[in-house]
Amino acid sequence: MPIATINIIEGRSDEQKEKLIEKVTQAIHEAIDAPKQNVRVILNEMPKQHFGIGGESVKKMGR
Amino acid sequence: MPIATINIIEGRSDEQKEKLIEKVTQAIHEAIDAPKQNVRVILNEMPKQHFGIGGESVKKMGR
Amino acid sequence: MPIATINIIEGRSDEQKEKLIEKVTQAIHEAIDAPKQNVRVILNEMPKQHFGIGGESVKKMGR
Amino acid sequence: MPIATINIIEGRSDEQKEKLIEKVTQAIHEAIDAPKQNVRVILNEMPKQHFGIGGESVKKMGR
Amino acid sequence: MPIATINIIEGRSDEQKEKLIEKVTQAIHEAIDAPKQNVRVILNEMPKQHFGIGGESVKKMGR
Amino acid sequence: MPIATINIIEGRSDEQKEKLIEKVTQAIHEAIDAPKQNVRVILNEMPKQHFGIGGESVKKMGR
Repeated sequence: MPIATINIIEGRSDEQKEKLIEKVTQAIHEAIDAPKQNVRVILNEMPKQHFGIGGESVKKMGR
Repeated sequence: MPIATINIIEGRSDEQKEKLIEKVTQAIHEAIDAPKQNVRVILNEMPKQHFGIGGESVKKMGR
Repeated sequence: MPIATINIIEGRSDEQKEKLIEKVTQAIHEAIDAPKQNVRVILNEMPKQHFGIGGESVKKMGR
Repeated sequence: MPIATINIIEGRSDEQKEKLIEKVTQAIHEAIDAPKQNVRVILNEMPKQHFGIGGESVKKMGR
Repeated sequence: MPIATINIIEGRSDEQKEKLIEKVTQAIHEAIDAPKQNVRVILNEMPKQHFGIGGESVKKMGR
Repeated sequence: MPIATINIIEGRSDEQKEKLIEKVTQAIHEAIDAPKQNVRVILNEMPKQHFGIGGESVKKMGR
């Protein structure tokens, strides 16, 4: 019964998020032999000013 | 000083969320004898396209 | 499909933890009307030197 | 490669959040000698009705 | 710069965990086009008495 | 009432962890003007085989 939480920067399309859920679920299933229907994936979208790398937000870096 | 984080699908009313905080705090207090005023509860609301079960988002499933 | 994570200080018995899982699950079920079998609870036990309150670990406080 | 997640109540300015990322990164660097560029900080803003203290949300308390 | 945290029940081999890190990283890379070297994966192993399904720990269920 | 969770690789001394709690608490206090006694810090130590960078665990990299 694996539960994955994935933090990503905001800006991905719904199609990309759907693909992310699908592929990560498949990857967990293959790696540790957990039944696919038991896998849970939670996506957490971070606004650019809420994620810091090396002391600066991604927003400030202008990425 | 227990700290609980609860992930729930979006769509609950403020009244339900208040009840959730109240009842979970009471449950923790009763189970492990922690003073109620020391319990913290964080609710995290997930949009339907951000929660995947068995490789599909709840949104895609049409729930 | 609510998923709760509860951080507690180390030192509770297995019986207390079992009660914690049971009571928190029941509380979530009652508060937001989620089927009990859909609720997941993850306990995370913190060593006393890994939890800080007001800038000091619980270990250093001698609690 | 330390990764910090900080839950804060909604209502801080972008300037305060930027300062939070900067100062926490510096603090981690100084305390455990991790290179600053390796530190990641994730801010998670909680709406007042999503954070409970002692069984009541911060919203209900009127804070 | 995606960061994934995966909760799994204790008992997997180091080889399975290595495969889990590798495959989930690849899946994230493919789904949202993030450079592989930017992906971080944190595994969190749960003892059986620390994970509850439907109000009972996995340990109590005898799984 | 800020709550910080910091993931670090295993291997730091108790003294370093104490310093980490102290300095991060101070940093949060200064950045967003939260009273120090309200700040909570949770340290989460990751074994080297449980943290992956770019698809490989820190253990496998031999760091």
